[in-house]
Amino acid sequence: MKFTLASCVACTVLVSQVAAQTFQRLGTCPTLGCIFPPDQADFLPGQWFDIRLEVHAPQNGSERVSYAQPDGNFTFTIARDGQRGVPAAQFFNLSEPALQTWNFTWYEDLFAQAARTPSLVRVASKAYRKVALYTPGHYIATLSYQNGSVTQANWTVRDIAPRRRAKNTILFVGDGMTTNMITAARLIAHQNLNGKYQSLMAMDQFPVLGHQMTHSIDSFITDSANSATALYTGHKSTVNALSVYADSSRDPSDDPKVETIAELFQEIYRGGVGIVSTAFIADATPAALTAHTRDRSQYGQVVDSFLKGIYNYTWVNWTGPDVLFGGGAEQFYPNSRSFQGKNYYTEFANAGYNVILNNTALQSASNNSRTLGIFSVNNMAKWLDRNIYPANLNISSTAPDGSRGAATDQPGLKEMTLKALQILHTRHSQDGFFLMSEAASIDKQMHLLDYDRALTELLELDDTIKATIAYLESIGELNNTQIVVTADHGHGFDVMGSVDTRFLAAQTTDRAKRNAVGTYQNSGLSQYVRPNTSAPVGSDQNVVYSQGVNFPNNFDPRYTLFQGVAAFPDHRENYTVHKRGPRVPALNVTGFDSDDFYVNYVDAVTGFVINGTLPVSADQGVHSLTDVPVFTMGPCQADFGGVYNSIDVFYKMAACLGLSRTTPVPR
Amino acid sequence: MKFTLASCVACTVLVSQVAAQTFQRLGTCPTLGCIFPPDQADFLPGQWFDIRLEVHAPQNGSERVSYAQPDGNFTFTIARDGQRGVPAAQFFNLSEPALQTWNFTWYEDLFAQAARTPSLVRVASKAYRKVALYTPGHYIATLSYQNGSVTQANWTVRDIAPRRRAKNTILFVGDGMTTNMITAARLIAHQNLNGKYQSLMAMDQFPVLGHQMTHSIDSFITDSANSATALYTGHKSTVNALSVYADSSRDPSDDPKVETIAELFQEIYRGGVGIVSTAFIADATPAALTAHTRDRSQYGQVVDSFLKGIYNYTWVNWTGPDVLFGGGAEQFYPNSRSFQGKNYYTEFANAGYNVILNNTALQSASNNSRTLGIFSVNNMAKWLDRNIYPANLNISSTAPDGSRGAATDQPGLKEMTLKALQILHTRHSQDGFFLMSEAASIDKQMHLLDYDRALTELLELDDTIKATIAYLESIGELNNTQIVVTADHGHGFDVMGSVDTRFLAAQTTDRAKRNAVGTYQNSGLSQYVRPNTSAPVGSDQNVVYSQGVNFPNNFDPRYTLFQGVAAFPDHRENYTVHKRGPRVPALNVTGFDSDDFYVNYVDAVTGFVINGTLPVSADQGVHSLTDVPVFTMGPCQADFGGVYNSIDVFYKMAACLGLSRTTPVPR
Repeated sequence: MKFTLASCVACTVLVSQVAAQTFQRLGTCPTLGCIFPPDQADFLPGQWFDIRLEVHAPQNGSERVSYAQPDGNFTFTIARDGQRGVPAAQFFNLSEPALQTWNFTWYEDLFAQAARTPSLVRVASKAYRKVALYTPGHYIATLSYQNGSVTQANWTVRDIAPRRRAKNTILFVGDGMTTNMITAARLIAHQNLNGKYQSLMAMDQFPVLGHQMTHSIDSFITDSANSATALYTGHKSTVNALSVYADSSRDPSDDPKVETIAELFQEIYRGGVGIVSTAFIADATPAALTAHTRDRSQYGQVVDSFLKGIYNYTWVNWTGPDVLFGGGAEQFYPNSRSFQGKNYYTEFANAGYNVILNNTALQSASNNSRTLGIFSVNNMAKWLDRNIYPANLNISSTAPDGSRGAATDQPGLKEMTLKALQILHTRHSQDGFFLMSEAASIDKQMHLLDYDRALTELLELDDTIKATIAYLESIGELNNTQIVVTADHGHGFDVMGSVDTRFLAAQTTDRAKRNAVGTYQNSGLSQYVRPNTSAPVGSDQNVVYSQGVNFPNNFDPRYTLFQGVAAFPDHRENYTVHKRGPRVPALNVTGFDSDDFYVNYVDAVTGFVINGTLPVSADQGVHSLTDVPVFTMGPCQADFGGVYNSIDVFYKMAACLGLSRTTPVPR
Repeated sequence: MKFTLASCVACTVLVSQVAAQTFQRLGTCPTLGCIFPPDQADFLPGQWFDIRLEVHAPQNGSERVSYAQPDGNFTFTIARDGQRGVPAAQFFNLSEPALQTWNFTWYEDLFAQAARTPSLVRVASKAYRKVALYTPGHYIATLSYQNGSVTQANWTVRDIAPRRRAKNTILFVGDGMTTNMITAARLIAHQNLNGKYQSLMAMDQFPVLGHQMTHSIDSFITDSANSATALYTGHKSTVNALSVYADSSRDPSDDPKVETIAELFQEIYRGGVGIVSTAFIADATPAALTAHTRDRSQYGQVVDSFLKGIYNYTWVNWTGPDVLFGGGAEQFYPNSRSFQGKNYYTEFANAGYNVILNNTALQSASNNSRTLGIFSVNNMAKWLDRNIYPANLNISSTAPDGSRGAATDQPGLKEMTLKALQILHTRHSQDGFFLMSEAASIDKQMHLLDYDRALTELLELDDTIKATIAYLESIGELNNTQIVVTADHGHGFDVMGSVDTRFLAAQTTDRAKRNAVGTYQNSGLSQYVRPNTSAPVGSDQNVVYSQGVNFPNNFDPRYTLFQGVAAFPDHRENYTVHKRGPRVPALNVTGFDSDDFYVNYVDAVTGFVINGTLPVSADQGVHSLTDVPVFTMGPCQADFGGVYNSIDVFYKMAACLGLSRTTPVPR
């Protein structure tokens, strides 16, 4: 079954008016009784998860109740496929957990927020830790509270047999990557002759294409934490949550967890796990593979989870990845941003990891050892800066050793991914591997409206995919390996034509500058793949195609792309490449109010001003709604066609890897 | 072969520096010798086409030559698969055509245009009419001129056997429809509960998904004329061109033609042809099926071509469609905009057509007759106006009879398409049919930034697809019918969050109004599928899902979509539905200069101003670059996965219908 269409006319679902408000008391919990995992949750057979129950007593606001305390004597049962409900502790053979209580406040809308009049909610709660459902089918979880109120959750354990069809899975995540961006990247990097591309993106040549819906569980725009959770666990969650459902408690680490594909793969097969990203490695997309927290900004704890897994609650025994490559040294050298101030280079080394800090060391590193590679403070340098404007790498205090030096010897996604594959293949040639490789700065540069950098990050991803296929072929593993290329969400980006930057610069008013834009027939042809101007005009040699290179060979042509996003802060545009490093579209020029951003006048000085549409507290662009593409090749590729939910990517990958457990395993 | 990757290192291709300019002397002709069809052209075996040759002598500007006249003694040969070139007249067994000469001018760039300094080009030309290539393989066309200058074109006749696998083909065109819009339409029309849609779009449930690249042959942004040409003929062309390659002559009707899928289908099988659109029926997407002109605005001539085909040159014998349904009465009742001032209702009636002018007549019309249905002047009424704000249909002089009356009894796309299918099935139950059904106003309303109307047009298309599948199933034709749903280009649209319209209206400054926007977790849940507020809170009945309805049931919720496009004229936004009819974002307020548009202050009065990024001559949005989706089901569906060129949609459809002719047929 491609997509679960629950028959909801027949469901017992309680939804109040509050559910559809932009501000929510608690996502997925429109009634006063909350079950996590909530109604509509799906599970892989045998996947570990926690259950959190909450009973709410709002003390003021539109939902005010007449009593001062929530019912602490609530009951909770689980019923399988029409059978009688059984108390959860009995169902899972656990002792009954202790009752917890807390309070929280929320704003009902923007008027309440502006007037600073929060609504107070008192909570009674229990949590059941590390449980699993092994038998495929439908389950009804029932929370009874407050003298007859009932909240029910329909759960589905998908009918996925534990049959392994892929030895290896490589998941490439183009963070924020949309079809629109792929189209634009193709335009600037591949030669088109009379309407025919003379070369294509590696992604374009994948045999199967799908679309996945990226929305959060409780809001229609997602962030990268929640969407990574969906891709890795088969459970959608809330913005900022990493592989947990978000509860209302103060502690971000006590929220109900769900087991990830990395945890499943290591636990079931002792297979290899690789985590590669061009972001700081504690960022959401890598983090969601091992971290379990409602708050993605617990960066130090995330890095600890990479090495040691979850320690504060009963959970999967995680022994660390084979490969962890990325930026984010600030969570490794001992300082206030590393977990408990510890030195995580030392922690990893003590656990037997080979620790490397630059591309030279990466290239010569052994393929036999578990390896940590941290190559910069914060996010890694961009392809455009590493390859075209390398002077931009001379930024002090970016060196991964925590010194004041610059991280000038950084690998790109391709170098990191190929090395990761070599290590994984060497260490796990029998049991296989799962590798997640993220092109993080597609998203990060789109946020900054720096389209040249975003698109070249996308091209680097494509180049990495091409090199990966070639490498797998060379070691005889291509047919054993499922390759999935997708994104976690979009940005509202597109290209509408071209800009004559010379004409734009020559005009003296903002309105006149806009006339430099050419649309339709005046968009012309891409000038980013530049003819060889040294060959005589009219000769056979003066077209140089980008075959085999597949990056632009001219970033600063006279006619550039007329490109943009559909929501933005105040900013300027002159539609030319930013040669001195990523752009800064908006600034807090008033200096005292951090929520009031204006156009940065030194960004695109020859251009014109575009007033923002986003709240004035935004200094950059935001994520968008669009479905994102899924390109697949290898075992099980036929399962990935058509349109489906982001969580289905997890179930399709897990099914292909045979990660179900249909008989109970020890807790 | 999914995509033709010509080996261009080995090609003899002449490209000068002029090729990449935004303004071009003549598209696809960077050298001074021009061949149409140009280098890289593909052909279906046996497909009729014209050849146009031009030799240019630029008299001034950057390309100025030393001689005053172009070479009229040029030669032209065609060589098959490495054989010796044969003069074209001999190759095609034609008499040598007469030499033609003319002049034209163009601007080399915006500076030249601003200074009004055109470049003059003198032209010598010949045209070979109605030729075909029957043997699959590679051909080299060589134009020799001016003492040794050579321009060559590599042509490929695709290896497509004349084997019919589909009895019927239905091509749905969502004009301007992108994946982003489908995602947004799903959000406002389908209930989502805890991250799971409870119903899906009909398109979402198609088994095979592809992406097609929409660009023009000579510019990277297309219009609907050129893109329709690609979908119907397998030949990309130039903006504004309908099923011809654009030459430089003054006469828009003498440009080299290519045979369309409708012409092929009727000629080979005498099968049924249906043409349905919510646009004025002479608009580009319907027009390109039978018209052959460089200038899509020859509307009267387009309507004549629907009935009579091409009369001014030797061409296919076209006998008219079985069904022609749409708007555009102004080309039918006798007036200055109908061809030669004639009454085309009478012309169609004289040819045996049943002529109907409203939905009531449509519903009761016979299924046995060829039928013309024209339901309004200009574009037809929108779903939102017909169904939610019907008072907006009371516009004088929209009645299709040319009176001052209003066209208040209009069908929608679903009604037109189902009737078309009934007629086609009745008349062609043995030989099958080809139907093109276009949701035109997705594009037209996106141009106006009227997202509510655009998305409901998209939902009407989806509803039409759903009804079509049900109808085909009911008559036993579903398994015989190839259904292809695609678009012709995009608009840079996306949704980034929600807007609290009440908070926005309560703010008094433009910057404060922007703070009504909620992104990420504050986007919340869609309020367009509204709970039944008459049921008590907490009851099982107060969620009404849109199953089976699949349109929003609340267009004016407090929390609306924060949506937009990536390029725009000056305009205002308050993010609320326009209840009085499609919006008018920009006006020529100065009144005397038609190229200077400013924000329309009465559009979205409670909103804030967003200054444009498009040239000030633009009063609406423009097309964008993005690849568009292709959803396919039925015979040959497996051929439509992955990423390909727009022209490949033609070859895939034509291959499935068996429209190749591999042996010569009489001219």
